[in-house]
Amino acid sequence: MEKVTVFGAGSWGTALSYVLAQNGHDLLLWTHRKEQAEEINNHTNERYLKGVQLPDSIKATADLDRAVAHADIIVLAVPTKAIREVSRDIRARLSKKALFVHVSKGIEPDSLKRISEMIRDEIPAEFIEEVVILSGPSHAEEVVLEHPTTVTAACANTQAANRIQDLFMNSYFRVYTNTDVIGVEIGGALKNIIALAVGITDGLGYGDNAKAAIMTRGLAEIARLGVKMGATPLTFSGLSGVGDLIVTCTSVHSRNWRAGNMLGKGKSVEEVLEEMGMVVEGIRTTKAAHQLAERYQVPMPITQALYMVLFEGVKPELAVEELMGRMKKNEMEDLVDLL
Amino acid sequence: MEKVTVFGAGSWGTALSYVLAQNGHDLLLWTHRKEQAEEINNHTNERYLKGVQLPDSIKATADLDRAVAHADIIVLAVPTKAIREVSRDIRARLSKKALFVHVSKGIEPDSLKRISEMIRDEIPAEFIEEVVILSGPSHAEEVVLEHPTTVTAACANTQAANRIQDLFMNSYFRVYTNTDVIGVEIGGALKNIIALAVGITDGLGYGDNAKAAIMTRGLAEIARLGVKMGATPLTFSGLSGVGDLIVTCTSVHSRNWRAGNMLGKGKSVEEVLEEMGMVVEGIRTTKAAHQLAERYQVPMPITQALYMVLFEGVKPELAVEELMGRMKKNEMEDLVDLL
Repeated sequence: MEKVTVFGAGSWGTALSYVLAQNGHDLLLWTHRKEQAEEINNHTNERYLKGVQLPDSIKATADLDRAVAHADIIVLAVPTKAIREVSRDIRARLSKKALFVHVSKGIEPDSLKRISEMIRDEIPAEFIEEVVILSGPSHAEEVVLEHPTTVTAACANTQAANRIQDLFMNSYFRVYTNTDVIGVEIGGALKNIIALAVGITDGLGYGDNAKAAIMTRGLAEIARLGVKMGATPLTFSGLSGVGDLIVTCTSVHSRNWRAGNMLGKGKSVEEVLEEMGMVVEGIRTTKAAHQLAERYQVPMPITQALYMVLFEGVKPELAVEELMGRMKKNEMEDLVDLL
Repeated sequence: MEKVTVFGAGSWGTALSYVLAQNGHDLLLWTHRKEQAEEINNHTNERYLKGVQLPDSIKATADLDRAVAHADIIVLAVPTKAIREVSRDIRARLSKKALFVHVSKGIEPDSLKRISEMIRDEIPAEFIEEVVILSGPSHAEEVVLEHPTTVTAACANTQAANRIQDLFMNSYFRVYTNTDVIGVEIGGALKNIIALAVGITDGLGYGDNAKAAIMTRGLAEIARLGVKMGATPLTFSGLSGVGDLIVTCTSVHSRNWRAGNMLGKGKSVEEVLEEMGMVVEGIRTTKAAHQLAERYQVPMPITQALYMVLFEGVKPELAVEELMGRMKKNEMEDLVDLL
């Protein structure tokens, strides 16, 4: 039994708490909203997991001191843009080393840092046992229904990855390990760009052929960038790569897909953001990926086309046309860089 | 302008004829049914492409002599199990070399031959300029709507692949070349197994997480086999690999997915075959893949589980349980064989 605190009581943080509580760990779930903590202590979290009865053993709190003091293992399940702030709040209260796990996806624009790098920026090394990334094709709603789900726990330190694997693993939630932190974080972050692009082609009324083409070529350009950054190419063929890409691009629940879909149907970026009323991570990530492509000198035509649509006012149909015309003629020419 | 005969007037043969006619080639479309040839000469093929107006320049015939005499390029678009018979019919009438293209997917049980090997079995080398494989994520219905579509033309002989690329390429139909014939044929054939397996998990009521897991791990085991057979691993990350897999597994139009879905819902293999009233290529391919896994000594747990369901009467839910329990714990352990 491990002492774990999950920070962030959105749908994914709550679903992971469900798994951890079922696995018999001593679990605390932190949320910054007192009323939400109370609701969870009464065994529901309606806004994020509608109609789900939570196990009695999930205890929630809005008390940061208590949340931090409780934990040998800290699971960060907050939105990407809250990572630094919550990390700082935790840091101010840490008195011993903890094993960190994060489940967020994104790249910080301008600094171009991955999530684990942002955490290490904010929390001094003497308080970090390790940072493990948990990523893979996993709708929270399906996890609490106990439908079979597979994810990857990534850490250069195999022992830490194994501990997180043991922590979460049960009969419906299978955890694989991987040592390729860069590949897992880049794949998870950049798949949101492809979901946006697929949403656009769907919104334009193109079909499954175009969708499969964008997903395939999109994954290739992500892998190309990842490899330049130090990732192992095969990670992109795994659960945190193609697996997560498939779940994100084929689900109408994906925020990024929905935003892309509205763009494809003719709405402006401003209209989409207003209508969604929340962060569309893929838009921030497109900016970051565009900067990464320049820094590492990697051709990323889909990212480039999406960037033009999002930030330069280019019409989606023109961007797709340009893309179809620009694609290289030999499939291996640009895949072959990966080996 | 090339002189081309397309053999087989199903939906894919007709859609490819549509592209070729639009590209200005001298095209003949052969079907063994006279009435169908007449219908096509009146510019429709309702059974296979409902509501589509075909270009006047598509000429159809049921006359084999005329069909063979016309062709410098022969496109075989017949079902896999008709490949040998139609090849023999063509061979009996060949008087000069032709460039062969095939668009079929499958592996012959027992002989374990790929389609291009079956063609070379039946047609003497002196009549074959080359055999090129055309494969990728491409619903026929979307091609005739001129929605963006990408495919791969594979041949060890680059010149032949380039000629087929030029033959089909236009603004909505993009053709990439690849020299990896084995990878393209194995990926195309074995993706039907994964579509069956995904249909089963969908039929059992599992969700998108399970679907993405089966697709990801399924692609990994196909790649593992393909590499042992001589394929390039990256081909499985391309259009004829993951691209085609995505289109097949996420479309309810896929025959293999539908068959799997009925199995997942509790029907027996016999009931499914009777209800479908047509060949389910994935069932034959599962048998062949199971034999290939033994011959090449490659672990293929998803193929194995599916084989038990199809040929040994194991209940689908037991096969899935077994599969979840059996999956290895280190993601790279079995991916790493690929490099």
